[in-house]
Amino acid sequence: MQAINITQKLALFSDYFSPKIVGELNENYVKLAKFQGDFVWHHHEHEDELFLVIKGKFTMKLRSGNVEIKAGEFFIVPRGVEHCPSAQEEVQIMLIEAKTTLNTGNINNERTVAELQRI
Amino acid sequence: MQAINITQKLALFSDYFSPKIVGELNENYVKLAKFQGDFVWHHHEHEDELFLVIKGKFTMKLRSGNVEIKAGEFFIVPRGVEHCPSAQEEVQIMLIEAKTTLNTGNINNERTVAELQRI
Repeated sequence: MQAINITQKLALFSDYFSPKIVGELNENYVKLAKFQGDFVWHHHEHEDELFLVIKGKFTMKLRSGNVEIKAGEFFIVPRGVEHCPSAQEEVQIMLIEAKTTLNTGNINNERTVAELQRI
Repeated sequence: MQAINITQKLALFSDYFSPKIVGELNENYVKLAKFQGDFVWHHHEHEDELFLVIKGKFTMKLRSGNVEIKAGEFFIVPRGVEHCPSAQEEVQIMLIEAKTTLNTGNINNERTVAELQRI
């Protein structure tokens, strides 16, 4: 059992929209990810998702309007709410979400990552 | 729906070992807390706990040895594992834990906070 250094873990990968598992608690995974560009609109029927920005900033597009999230801030997308992350420049993020959560939610396309890597 | 600025929320209180609720996801609460000094040895029978250090550092005392956790690092105490947080100087922490988790776990004493404030 040891502390996990977030910045050190983030240095281990460079691919976008491909979350890596770094921990688990209470039926959720803790993941790290880098985003750049637009993702896809999707929702998770039964799962909330937490996005904590470690470095940079991004826009969470929602049907009700955009939310800007920058380093030191977090945002929780409630279950059922359609969303699309969008980052003009690279943003580094910690995610906490149910183990059952698929990155593209109700959408299955070329951006879906079914088997997440652990780092 | 809006982003939560962690530092702004932490500025709203100054009491130690008294976590405040700032969000919820998937049957867990996101909490912020400040620790200084030694807490009490306890465990949570069925719940894992995540401690993410926002500012400062602290020691998680475990029966198997101490773990040092500093800003930018997180540590997950698995269910059933006895632990005692200890901070020589003030440390500011984000916690993620099941809604059912009591701060003092299996111990009920003067440091137990049964009704958590939302900020």
